[in-house]
Amino acid sequence: MTQSTENSTPDQEQDTVTAALLVIGDEILSGRTVDKNINKLASHCTQIGIRLSEVRVVSDHSPAIIAALNELRARNSYVFTTGGIGPTHDDITAQSVAEAFNVPLLEHPEALAILEDHYPRGALTDARRLMARVPQGGQLVYNSISAAPGFMIENVIVMAGVPAIVDVMLDDVTPKLRTGKKLLSKTVQVHHPESFVANLLLELQNQYEGVTIGSYPYFRDGVIGTTVVMRSVDETKLNTAHQQLKNQLIETDKKFS
Amino acid sequence: MTQSTENSTPDQEQDTVTAALLVIGDEILSGRTVDKNINKLASHCTQIGIRLSEVRVVSDHSPAIIAALNELRARNSYVFTTGGIGPTHDDITAQSVAEAFNVPLLEHPEALAILEDHYPRGALTDARRLMARVPQGGQLVYNSISAAPGFMIENVIVMAGVPAIVDVMLDDVTPKLRTGKKLLSKTVQVHHPESFVANLLLELQNQYEGVTIGSYPYFRDGVIGTTVVMRSVDETKLNTAHQQLKNQLIETDKKFS
Repeated sequence: MTQSTENSTPDQEQDTVTAALLVIGDEILSGRTVDKNINKLASHCTQIGIRLSEVRVVSDHSPAIIAALNELRARNSYVFTTGGIGPTHDDITAQSVAEAFNVPLLEHPEALAILEDHYPRGALTDARRLMARVPQGGQLVYNSISAAPGFMIENVIVMAGVPAIVDVMLDDVTPKLRTGKKLLSKTVQVHHPESFVANLLLELQNQYEGVTIGSYPYFRDGVIGTTVVMRSVDETKLNTAHQQLKNQLIETDKKFS
Repeated sequence: MTQSTENSTPDQEQDTVTAALLVIGDEILSGRTVDKNINKLASHCTQIGIRLSEVRVVSDHSPAIIAALNELRARNSYVFTTGGIGPTHDDITAQSVAEAFNVPLLEHPEALAILEDHYPRGALTDARRLMARVPQGGQLVYNSISAAPGFMIENVIVMAGVPAIVDVMLDDVTPKLRTGKKLLSKTVQVHHPESFVANLLLELQNQYEGVTIGSYPYFRDGVIGTTVVMRSVDETKLNTAHQQLKNQLIETDKKFS
């Protein structure tokens, strides 16, 4: 057993399943590529009842990947990684994950068979064949778009960086994941600056334990306003808090939608 | 002096200035909000000669903010933070930064004057006045959009989460930052899968120390291709490597743009 499964956290005992996302890629850090996987994974996790607790973006640098991965997998139910599993010299994720788990990186027979099946005869070059390597003990995560699989080892799910491939890999791996209570949310748009509702929200936050109240200012088309988002796994409590906020906004202002 | 300035890293001695970005906000982790600041800051840093070395996204939870901030500021020339400096109960960034530096959070006279000047008489509520608090020793980062300033304390720059405000805050703070050599880049589009150029790129990477070669697959409109990005602070070396790649692609394929 690994450290992460031995030491179940209080959160896990309370039916909360957490995840971290490790985005691997110089291209995100240089600004060349706009990451699309953070929001994709955040939305997916919320939808299936996993709480995304943190995200890191690191460069294509093995020590950085290993350090981040070992820290994140020890304190989260799951760690997802995106990027760095292609056939080129800068694709060092599989090797880094193997080093993080201190296991060898081996050619996976089923992964090799998938690649052999995918490419025309003779087109499975040495470079492509590298994509069949999986850390010992890893299970394949299938990729219906470009064949080369990701993998899951213990609580770490290793995916490609291309967003469309992340979609199909999430489809494949999600049924295997333990999930917790879904975090529900209710939103209220307030046509006023945040400071207008600050005291009201503070009082509500103190009153409703188990409901997290977020306040997000916006400036759209020259209009200042605030989006209030209430989140809870307890639907009844969430509805009560939401109704109370709406009532109090009516009382204090009559101007909300 | 702080740990971060006492222990200059080898990188700093070699005229490389690094930064980390700490994105603070439950709304990013829940998927409700798509972060726009990571790419903004990444592009900005590259443009001015700062290397963005890592990004973290953490929740509105003080221990998480403090731990991440202390880790990042010890090993980077600068740390930028976005989010959590508004007037509501979930805006805990200024307090967390003060705790990370172990200094009191004090009402900053100039920040207070800015807010008094910005709001109509009587409209500077207690909630709004909270936005005048700055960790002791912090210098203001001006906000020409909604007045409430960010601040810079030692090597940490604390900004709002709203992207338009991040823009004006970066404008204000950038002249105060030390910058290094600009990372230059050259891009080649290859109309083939990554594996087609994998060996070629590996050889080039081994040949050109100081040039980082990134290979990024794409699937656009049903076409598979690869974007090769070469990056270096050494313009001559970069141009030579770039020319060699183009020549070798012509030799091996004649199909590139």
